[in-house]
Amino acid sequence: MKKLKISVIPGDGIGKEVVPETLRVLDTLADLHGGVTFQYENHPWSCEYYLEHSVMMPDDGMARLHQTDAIYLGAVGNPKLVPDHVSLWGLLIKIRRECEQVINIRPAQYIEGVKSPLAEPNHFDFVVVRENSEGEYSEVGGRIHSGDDEIAIQNAIFTRKATERTIRYAFDLAQKRRGRVTSATKSNGIVHSMPFWDQVFHEVGHDWPTIETETNHIDALAAFLVSKPQHFDVIVASNLFGDILTDLGASIMGSIGIAPAANINLNGKYPSMFEPVHGSAPDIIGTGTANPIGQLWTAQMMLDHLGLEELGQLLLRAIKETIGEGIKTRDLGGTANTKEVVDHIIEKLRLY
Amino acid sequence: MKKLKISVIPGDGIGKEVVPETLRVLDTLADLHGGVTFQYENHPWSCEYYLEHSVMMPDDGMARLHQTDAIYLGAVGNPKLVPDHVSLWGLLIKIRRECEQVINIRPAQYIEGVKSPLAEPNHFDFVVVRENSEGEYSEVGGRIHSGDDEIAIQNAIFTRKATERTIRYAFDLAQKRRGRVTSATKSNGIVHSMPFWDQVFHEVGHDWPTIETETNHIDALAAFLVSKPQHFDVIVASNLFGDILTDLGASIMGSIGIAPAANINLNGKYPSMFEPVHGSAPDIIGTGTANPIGQLWTAQMMLDHLGLEELGQLLLRAIKETIGEGIKTRDLGGTANTKEVVDHIIEKLRLY
Ligand SMILES: CC(C)[C@H](C(=O)O)[C@@H](O)C(=O)O
Ligand SMILES: CC(C)[C@H](C(=O)O)[C@@H](O)C(=O)O
Repeated sequence: MKKLKISVIPGDGIGKEVVPETLRVLDTLADLHGGVTFQYENHPWSCEYYLEHSVMMPDDGMARLHQTDAIYLGAVGNPKLVPDHVSLWGLLIKIRRECEQVINIRPAQYIEGVKSPLAEPNHFDFVVVRENSEGEYSEVGGRIHSGDDEIAIQNAIFTRKATERTIRYAFDLAQKRRGRVTSATKSNGIVHSMPFWDQVFHEVGHDWPTIETETNHIDALAAFLVSKPQHFDVIVASNLFGDILTDLGASIMGSIGIAPAANINLNGKYPSMFEPVHGSAPDIIGTGTANPIGQLWTAQMMLDHLGLEELGQLLLRAIKETIGEGIKTRDLGGTANTKEVVDHIIEKLRLY
Repeated sequence: MKKLKISVIPGDGIGKEVVPETLRVLDTLADLHGGVTFQYENHPWSCEYYLEHSVMMPDDGMARLHQTDAIYLGAVGNPKLVPDHVSLWGLLIKIRRECEQVINIRPAQYIEGVKSPLAEPNHFDFVVVRENSEGEYSEVGGRIHSGDDEIAIQNAIFTRKATERTIRYAFDLAQKRRGRVTSATKSNGIVHSMPFWDQVFHEVGHDWPTIETETNHIDALAAFLVSKPQHFDVIVASNLFGDILTDLGASIMGSIGIAPAANINLNGKYPSMFEPVHGSAPDIIGTGTANPIGQLWTAQMMLDHLGLEELGQLLLRAIKETIGEGIKTRDLGGTANTKEVVDHIIEKLRLY
C-alpha cells in the first residue's frame, strides 16, 4: 500500500467549503485504486489565522509542508480581514517561492455543457505555462518623497535561469501536444525585460526545430484569446502576463469556478502545490453555491503529478459527464449545490 | 475662416493606405462647416524613413509638430524592417512623451452591425483612461552578467503627479457619463507600484463623493471585460494595464480595426495626438481591405478635441449608419474595400 501525504490548506472563503468536500472524492479514488491511500495534514492557515497569530502560517509551517508529497490549497485572501499583499505574500506566494514551485500550469478547454461567453467557442484547448518565481512579482522597489512628490518604483527581475526553464518547459509540453508555442511579450513598450524574454525564447527555440513558434504582444494576445482561442496550443508567459491570460482563459471557459492550476516544483526537493484559479469569493460564502469543479480539476492535476494518471483520467471523465448531465452549480447556470455536485461525481466514480 | 494645422503621419503599413483616404472625409466635413479649413503637414516618418535616415524622425521633427494644432497618426511599426522598440520609442512613444500627451483615452462600444465575438454583447459602452507617460513603459533598467547568469532588470516608475492626474481625469469623465470608475490594480502581486496606485485612487476618490468606485485586479478585470462588459463605465489604468484592456475592448467590439484612441496633452503647451488602436497590419498591405473606421473614429475624437463637436457627431453618425447598411470591410464580414467605405461615408455626410 502506497501512502501519500498531502498537506491540505483550505485557506479562506469558499476554499474552506470546497476543499473538505473534494477530499471525499480523493478518498473514493483511493478506494477504487486499492493500492494507494491519502493521508491528509490539515492546516488552518488563512486570514482568520492571521487575525489570531499575526502571521499567515506558523514558523515551522514550511518545514511541515516540505515533508509531504503535495500541497492541496483552496483559496487565499480576504481583503476585508487582511490586506491582500499581506495574506498572499505570507502564504500563497511564500509557498510558491520557498517550495521552489517555479512553473505554474493552467489548462483552458472548451467544456461541453458549460456556456462560454463567446459566441463560437470553437473547442479551444490550450495550456498557459507561467513563470512562477520572479518577474513582475517582486519585492524589490520602494518609495521616495511624500505628498505631491511621492514616487513608487517597482522592479521586475528576469533571470536567464528562470526565464529559460519556463520556456523549455513550454517547448517540452508542446512536443507532447499539438506542437505550437506562443510567447507573450511586450518588448515594444517594456524595453529591458521583454526584449530579454524574446531573446531567450528565440535561442531556446533552436533546440526544438519541429515546434512552431510565434511571439505576440500581450495586448494583441489577450485580444486573440477572445477572437480565436482555438488557435493556441501552449502559451508561455511571464508571471504577470500568465496571470492575466489564465484568468481570461477561465473567463472564456465560462466560469472562473472550473479552471485548475498547478504550481510545479521541478527539482524534486519540495512538494508541488495545486490550487484552482478562482479566489476565495467572500460574497458567496455560506450559500452552498461554490463550484467544486475548479478544485477537483486541480486534484486531477495533482493525481497526474503523483503518478496516478489513471485516477486523474477517471476523475476528469466524471467531471465532464456530470457537467454534461446538467448537475451544475449556479455559476454554470445550474441549481445544484457544492455537495450535490461532489456526491454525483462520487456516485459516477463508484460505477466506473 | 478658422485654419487648423494638422500634422499628418501616416506611418507604416496600412497607416499609409488609410490615412490619406480619411483626410478626404475631414475635408468634406470642413466644407460642410464652412467656417473651418484643415491645413495638413505631411510627414513620411516611418520604418522606411528609418532605413534611409537611421532615425524615425528628423531633428527638427518635434519642433514642427509643436507648431500644429493636432497630430493625426496612422500606425507605427514594422518589425520586419526595424525592431519595434526602436521604431516605437523613436516615434510613437517619443511623441507621446515629448508632447506631454499624458493621458490616453480609448472608448469601447457595442456597435450595431458589428459582430462581437461575445454571445451576448449587451450594449456595453465604456472608456479606458490610461496613464500615458510613465509606469511600466520605462527606459530605466538594464542587464548584468551574461550567459547563464544574465539578469534583466526593468523598473516601473509611478509618480504621484502622473498617477493622480490620470485618476482625476477618469473621475471627471465619469461625472459626465454614468458615474462609475473602476480602477485596475494588481496590488496583491505587485507590491510597490500597485498599492501606491490604489492609495492615490482611494484618496482622490474622496473629492468625488457621488461617483461609485471599485478596484479590480487586472486578471479579474480582464475576465470581467469578457463576461460582463456592460458593467463598466470608466476604467482607469496604468500604461501597461490600459494597453491590455483597450485591445481587449477592441476585441469584444468585434474588430481591432474600428477602435479609436486619443493621446491627450493637458497643459495646452503641445498638440494632442490621434491614432487608432490597430497597428500597421503588414499582412494585409496592398489588399485594399484595411478598415478605415478606426482611423475615422479617431478623427472624430480629434474634432471633439479641436472644439468641432458637431462635426464629430456627424461623422460618428455617418460611420454607424454605414456599418448598419452593411458597407463594411472584410474584418467586419463585409466585402467593401477601404475606398468604398470612405466614399460611402462622404456621400452620407453630403446628404446631412
Ligand atoms: C505599439 C505599442 C508601444 C503601443 C503601446 O503599447 O502603447 C500600442 O500597443 C498602443 O496601445 O498604442
Ligand atoms: C492572488 C494572486 C497573488 C495570484 C497571482 O496573481 O499569482 C492569483 O491571481 C493567481 O493567479 O494565482
